Amino acid sequence: MNFKRSNFFPYKNKYYIDQLGTLLKNEILFSNTNNNFEINEISSLSNLRDNSILFVESDLKIDKVNDKNIHVITNINENKSNFNNITIVKNLNIAYNIICNQLFHHEDQIGFIDEFDFINGSYISKFSQIDKSTEIGKNCIISRGVEIGKNTIIKNNVVIKNSIIGNNIVICDNTSIGTSGFGFDFNKRGSVNLNPQLGITVIDDNVHIGASCTVDRGKIDITHIGKNSMIDNMVHIGHNVIIGKNACIAAQTGISGSVMIGDNVTIGGQAGFAGHIKIGENVIIAARSGVTKNLRNNSVVAGFPAIDMKEWKKNIIRQRKNGY
Amino acid sequence: MNFKRSNFFPYKNKYYIDQLGTLLKNEILFSNTNNNFEINEISSLSNLRDNSILFVESDLKIDKVNDKNIHVITNINENKSNFNNITIVKNLNIAYNIICNQLFHHEDQIGFIDEFDFINGSYISKFSQIDKSTEIGKNCIISRGVEIGKNTIIKNNVVIKNSIIGNNIVICDNTSIGTSGFGFDFNKRGSVNLNPQLGITVIDDNVHIGASCTVDRGKIDITHIGKNSMIDNMVHIGHNVIIGKNACIAAQTGISGSVMIGDNVTIGGQAGFAGHIKIGENVIIAARSGVTKNLRNNSVVAGFPAIDMKEWKKNIIRQRKNGY
Amino acid sequence: MNFKRSNFFPYKNKYYIDQLGTLLKNEILFSNTNNNFEINEISSLSNLRDNSILFVESDLKIDKVNDKNIHVITNINENKSNFNNITIVKNLNIAYNIICNQLFHHEDQIGFIDEFDFINGSYISKFSQIDKSTEIGKNCIISRGVEIGKNTIIKNNVVIKNSIIGNNIVICDNTSIGTSGFGFDFNKRGSVNLNPQLGITVIDDNVHIGASCTVDRGKIDITHIGKNSMIDNMVHIGHNVIIGKNACIAAQTGISGSVMIGDNVTIGGQAGFAGHIKIGENVIIAARSGVTKNLRNNSVVAGFPAIDMKEWKKNIIRQRKNGY
Repeated sequence: MNFKRSNFFPYKNKYYIDQLGTLLKNEILFSNTNNNFEINEISSLSNLRDNSILFVESDLKIDKVNDKNIHVITNINENKSNFNNITIVKNLNIAYNIICNQLFHHEDQIGFIDEFDFINGSYISKFSQIDKSTEIGKNCIISRGVEIGKNTIIKNNVVIKNSIIGNNIVICDNTSIGTSGFGFDFNKRGSVNLNPQLGITVIDDNVHIGASCTVDRGKIDITHIGKNSMIDNMVHIGHNVIIGKNACIAAQTGISGSVMIGDNVTIGGQAGFAGHIKIGENVIIAARSGVTKNLRNNSVVAGFPAIDMKEWKKNIIRQRKNGY
Repeated sequence: MNFKRSNFFPYKNKYYIDQLGTLLKNEILFSNTNNNFEINEISSLSNLRDNSILFVESDLKIDKVNDKNIHVITNINENKSNFNNITIVKNLNIAYNIICNQLFHHEDQIGFIDEFDFINGSYISKFSQIDKSTEIGKNCIISRGVEIGKNTIIKNNVVIKNSIIGNNIVICDNTSIGTSGFGFDFNKRGSVNLNPQLGITVIDDNVHIGASCTVDRGKIDITHIGKNSMIDNMVHIGHNVIIGKNACIAAQTGISGSVMIGDNVTIGGQAGFAGHIKIGENVIIAARSGVTKNLRNNSVVAGFPAIDMKEWKKNIIRQRKNGY
Repeated sequence: MNFKRSNFFPYKNKYYIDQLGTLLKNEILFSNTNNNFEINEISSLSNLRDNSILFVESDLKIDKVNDKNIHVITNINENKSNFNNITIVKNLNIAYNIICNQLFHHEDQIGFIDEFDFINGSYISKFSQIDKSTEIGKNCIISRGVEIGKNTIIKNNVVIKNSIIGNNIVICDNTSIGTSGFGFDFNKRGSVNLNPQLGITVIDDNVHIGASCTVDRGKIDITHIGKNSMIDNMVHIGHNVIIGKNACIAAQTGISGSVMIGDNVTIGGQAGFAGHIKIGENVIIAARSGVTKNLRNNSVVAGFPAIDMKEWKKNIIRQRKNGY
């Protein structure tokens, strides 16, 4: 899904590709540019955008980016010969942070500007679009760029930012949508080293989200909750997570960043997921499972590390019998 | 405990029993009515109310409901001969949803109306009753029907709805009381298919509830926290949960719907409970336990699935010794 | 770290040591006082304050407190001969509660007074000190005594009380800082028996705290989060916890009271810690670990009870192979 990034994250400074050297200074090991353009966007491999920078952290053999104005920034030297427009840097996180913090305003650095109307007890950004049929409770904040469809119910003390919210959705009290993901370089800690989170959260029609949940927005692209999904209280959904249609997720479950979940999944309470794994369709995950690996369609798992539920039950019985 | 449902959930439409056919249409498989009355209420098996509909999802041999104006709606064909006033439906959840959504206004559908006074930084419903000695912080919402007793402290950003709160209670910041339970038909997902949650939360005197907790209200009856109970931060309590006196529940524990917990129970942090189980009195549950079965009085358990704590410790030692 | 307690907890009544008998009445088993002074403070063993009461719950051989006006209150009879100024009580929690509730106003009893300015949508105590460069969102409450440094970002619906917050810090939506710890006598339950929590939370420069977190303040001293630490969403940090520099703590982890954590620790999501344990420097704790014991510097652990990660992985493989 594409969205207009500057609706949410206003441009801060304008740069051309030939200014990267000024921005990144000693971070640059090598740079080759035959195409100078004004940088308007950032890309991910799954969503290439025109006039953008693409940050690549793996060894890519094929130049996917030929047809657009895209400059690759990478810390992988092997990419050097595969791209025409490329900058090799020492540390990709540092390069990402420097560039994104200069290009875009965002809520994790001083100076982010929004303007609110105070309507019926909630703060509604002048730069948001909310259908008149949608009902918003008290003490909510709807920040810039947010779009909300028809007949959606936002209860009280809800914070929604950097999100596109559909129709007939219910979001319960004290929940935060579109919050900053937890992305950073393990060796560079502290608030100022958090990777700018410049994506959004997209919530499809008929989704229910319980009380005191947090749904982080995507880092570059989106965090997505599919149609008809139902999420209980105190569920945490990390950045870049993609959840299919008809998910049912019970309370206090946590889904780490970049997990992909297929349609019709049922997840018990207090379950957890390792980051970047892929869960198939129709999967059932028992309460308190710790899922550490990809799961095929129709899997039924339990335990930590989560295994087939029948095996898990057998193991429990065997352990009891043998006194383990 | 009985409460006046319409204090919290105003009547939406009035129906008589002989209009059920119009409401439920093709959902009805069989109907037998010799008693037509105006439907004012919904009943549960543990709390039969006059002029009500009782939704029954199990095979009940005895007609408990003879002495009141009660019409049974069930999906169990075997109930047909046991009740005089009965409607058999294809799907009990759908029937429940259609009827309750027509009978009562509630917060999970568009059009719920409340009126607030803004008092000292918080929104207090004109239809709530709060003792003058009770202190309420900033940015709270106290919704319609809520009653709060004497010398209770409600801190900041607290949402209380559909609840009766006693005396000398402390409810800490960012907590939500009386939120919607997570009840639905597994095969019918999406916000519009959530079962209307038409019960309340009752909190007895001297209870302490920490920060960022959620306590769902009952579906038809109550969620109950007994006198002198102490609940730490980020605890989730599901709908219909009954907790006795003097409970002590540490942080991040989650209690699934319809769990019953006796008096004097001590529960460590990050514990979890399967739904609908019964925990006796004086039970001690170690931190991070996953309780899957009923527990007798005076049980002391640990692990997942939770077992006797001594056995659990022996198992750990044995596993270590044998290299498991 | 020392702080001015009365900035946060105003004096309620003034007492002299020779009035302890009137306050504690039948709770006193023995008392010996050759030094009468006005009680202005409470001490801990790690932070002795002048003109204070020191509550001691262990057998202390040496009189550490000779050089200050300190009166010891203890329930350990063996301390009798080690201190000159001492009161032996039946129940130390009761004595602590009686004295502290009389000496200091605090937020868990009726009558705590604060005065707020309403600034840009948030309530800011007249008794707080916030640098002008710091940005505060909507619906926040900053309570009395709170100090916040430069260029800090407080997002929306954040509650901060009893805290000293440094520079360049980010605190995300719906988080509560400086909340009441969960301290009490296991045999005396109920809101009125909660130990007064009279310490503060100290957060050092460049810390990031995610959304919907709770950080309890110290009971007598401080809860401390060290410089450059990064904390994800829905993390609970109990009272008296000390976290070193550069910690990285993923979502939904809970840290029980009085845990001490060294510098450069990495903690996965949904981990838990038993209270009062000590974690060394550079420790790595896998997601969903339940840490029950002290951990040495450079430990890498997983599982519950947490053990060396390599052992844990071997165990998992062995169990799978042997069908456990």
